[in-house]
Amino acid sequence: MSQKTTTALRIDSVRFERDFRRLAEIGSTGDGGVHRPALGPAHLEAREWFRRRILDDGLEVVEDGAANLGARLAGESTDAPTVLLGSHLDSVPQGGRFDGALGTLAAYEVLRTVRDAGLRLPLHLEAIDFTDEEGTLVGLLGSRALAGTLPAGELLQPRGGRAALESAMARAGIDDASIAAARRDPSTIAGFLELHIEQGPRLTDGGNAIGIVDGIVGMGSFEAVFRGRADHAGTTPIASRKDAGLAAASFLVTATAEVGEKFPGCVVNFGQLAFEPGAFNIVPATARLATEYRAPDSAGMQALGRRLIELAGLAARRCGVEVQIEDRGQIPPVPCSPVVRNAFVSSAEALGLSHVSLGSGAGHDTMAMAAICPAGMIFVPSTGGSHSPSEHAEWTACVGGANVLLGATLRLVAARSAR
Amino acid sequence: MSQKTTTALRIDSVRFERDFRRLAEIGSTGDGGVHRPALGPAHLEAREWFRRRILDDGLEVVEDGAANLGARLAGESTDAPTVLLGSHLDSVPQGGRFDGALGTLAAYEVLRTVRDAGLRLPLHLEAIDFTDEEGTLVGLLGSRALAGTLPAGELLQPRGGRAALESAMARAGIDDASIAAARRDPSTIAGFLELHIEQGPRLTDGGNAIGIVDGIVGMGSFEAVFRGRADHAGTTPIASRKDAGLAAASFLVTATAEVGEKFPGCVVNFGQLAFEPGAFNIVPATARLATEYRAPDSAGMQALGRRLIELAGLAARRCGVEVQIEDRGQIPPVPCSPVVRNAFVSSAEALGLSHVSLGSGAGHDTMAMAAICPAGMIFVPSTGGSHSPSEHAEWTACVGGANVLLGATLRLVAARSAR
Repeated sequence: MSQKTTTALRIDSVRFERDFRRLAEIGSTGDGGVHRPALGPAHLEAREWFRRRILDDGLEVVEDGAANLGARLAGESTDAPTVLLGSHLDSVPQGGRFDGALGTLAAYEVLRTVRDAGLRLPLHLEAIDFTDEEGTLVGLLGSRALAGTLPAGELLQPRGGRAALESAMARAGIDDASIAAARRDPSTIAGFLELHIEQGPRLTDGGNAIGIVDGIVGMGSFEAVFRGRADHAGTTPIASRKDAGLAAASFLVTATAEVGEKFPGCVVNFGQLAFEPGAFNIVPATARLATEYRAPDSAGMQALGRRLIELAGLAARRCGVEVQIEDRGQIPPVPCSPVVRNAFVSSAEALGLSHVSLGSGAGHDTMAMAAICPAGMIFVPSTGGSHSPSEHAEWTACVGGANVLLGATLRLVAARSAR
Repeated sequence: MSQKTTTALRIDSVRFERDFRRLAEIGSTGDGGVHRPALGPAHLEAREWFRRRILDDGLEVVEDGAANLGARLAGESTDAPTVLLGSHLDSVPQGGRFDGALGTLAAYEVLRTVRDAGLRLPLHLEAIDFTDEEGTLVGLLGSRALAGTLPAGELLQPRGGRAALESAMARAGIDDASIAAARRDPSTIAGFLELHIEQGPRLTDGGNAIGIVDGIVGMGSFEAVFRGRADHAGTTPIASRKDAGLAAASFLVTATAEVGEKFPGCVVNFGQLAFEPGAFNIVPATARLATEYRAPDSAGMQALGRRLIELAGLAARRCGVEVQIEDRGQIPPVPCSPVVRNAFVSSAEALGLSHVSLGSGAGHDTMAMAAICPAGMIFVPSTGGSHSPSEHAEWTACVGGANVLLGATLRLVAARSAR
């Protein structure tokens, strides 16, 4: 494979778009969105369509016990490792048509482009649809099964409930044992590359064509429970109160401002707040505030978590109330592979596409794959929010992203075979 | 009646305390509190005890169709008007033993003291237990029925439900018609005086023995509904959000501070706050904030209400969200009678008791009575909160208050008969 071939190759944007449009009809909600919860009827129909597409295109279908479904393009040597590309075909309920589907079809388009160019690569390529990325059933089910990092206990108490998981497994013809057997030997995987819509405004705001993800943020969450005193709102002057609601609101306001100003790349969110006893004329005795924060690296996670707890304590003291922090767990940040990131950078630059390095604020299959191989991902600009029928990416941006994916794949294969 | 008699007379503190302790046993919750919801078994038992007490003391029992129950001490002339004294024997569920009961027995003690002194006053005196002050059934049922200001429609849709009211009326042997008939001709009422515990910290904080109420605050309430956008908390930078929760919390914090600093005698309370959709990882799209404010006069009510709506709008604009104000009604402020207030002031000063003028942040029977006669009330210091088994007033403070009530009653009678 010559350097010239690598840089001259482009995906077939017409074929790519035709397939994307066809796929968006499966589970369509009529408002631009799709409803394809994992292993539900529409997702199974989408998989069946994908399987036929692969066979009709003359490629090899690969399936495993976790219901992961992919196309395979064999490399020169049988015992060579595989570069995996992909994303997922499932959606959240009433979701958008780009999330996951675009990345899966971009991966598949890369395989077809390589095959059509007559390239015989030293490594195998696979374009994969990972089962249940969105977590209707378990969350990152397929990618964690393949990586061998899915705890058996999680299948017994999955977030969607065991009954829903059992029905879904029956529909897909899999079971707990087959999911466990889906694990692949890490030495057989040379890397994982994913394309995804950004689901946020940073690329559109910054005017960049490609976001090269440097890591997937870590996430921590806790409930801050402020406890004051339930006073009569009419007879108790403001200065005499122990107002738990005021303490929670003060914490919310100061923490949001400070994280926005002083913690670049980090976010905090306060998604739930409940006052007790909860009457117009009673000063809140208790305020329970759901707090979630994300940071791109471990040091940032620790510093941010510590500072939030400190700010909660300061707000409580100012209002004369107590605060208790009830931990709801942490997920550590996952850095993307420098090798994969560099391959994306070179590919974007060769294509003349503006790019920027950014963190992913949401979890993705890349997060699971990073545990066993060099893994990385790119974002293409999107608007209309996340997990919404109105999510939208311009088709030229999608084509640009798919070409970056193609170029990065070929670069990664070249780098790996040059070792 | 000589000026000497008026100033030398004192209530019988031992008798007063013995009756107060006996009454506190009826409906006792064993923790210092009482459970005597209006016209429930314990309240009816307390009324029966009060009736027997009146008869045993050789006074006249007065009852009306609203189940108001009182003792009467006839004056010199049959067609003279009556000075009403009193409060209520009902309690909130699991309430305290001072709220209402102290004022009812202090009023009754005033009658006994006058009778025992052999004073023949030119006006009639009545010590009354007003039905359902606390609002288990309707709220200020007895005093508003007597004043003739209770809308008939309110009895059909009472706050405690029509079924509960019907059972209660049946137990007390009254009905809608008899409640309507309980109205008294305002020309027969010379005034109304009430003693009550403060249910707040101003007297204890300021070291005053007597609070002379200058008015009962007006109250307004609304829900401020902030509407932003439900974004993914991980992928949406803080600066790009339309966070309805942040807007509500900002309003809560700034309004609490501003009312505390710039609106003397006023309060604001935020007793409920709910975020939607209400998940750790979703930026709140909607925040619904229960807002209640109180001010001692009409001008203050208007200024405060306007400013709160203004602050809600400012907070919304700063966060890029919309806000809608859903009105929940206003109750106008009620000033206390200057004549009655002056009688209380003279009485406290004659007794050498420190006093301060203050507003009542809570509603009381005085509020209803002020519609038809010169009405006023005093507070004695209390601790342990409001509507709580731990509410407490020192007995010497209660005796001081009862003597102020006695002195003010005699001064009011003297002033009225001197006209």
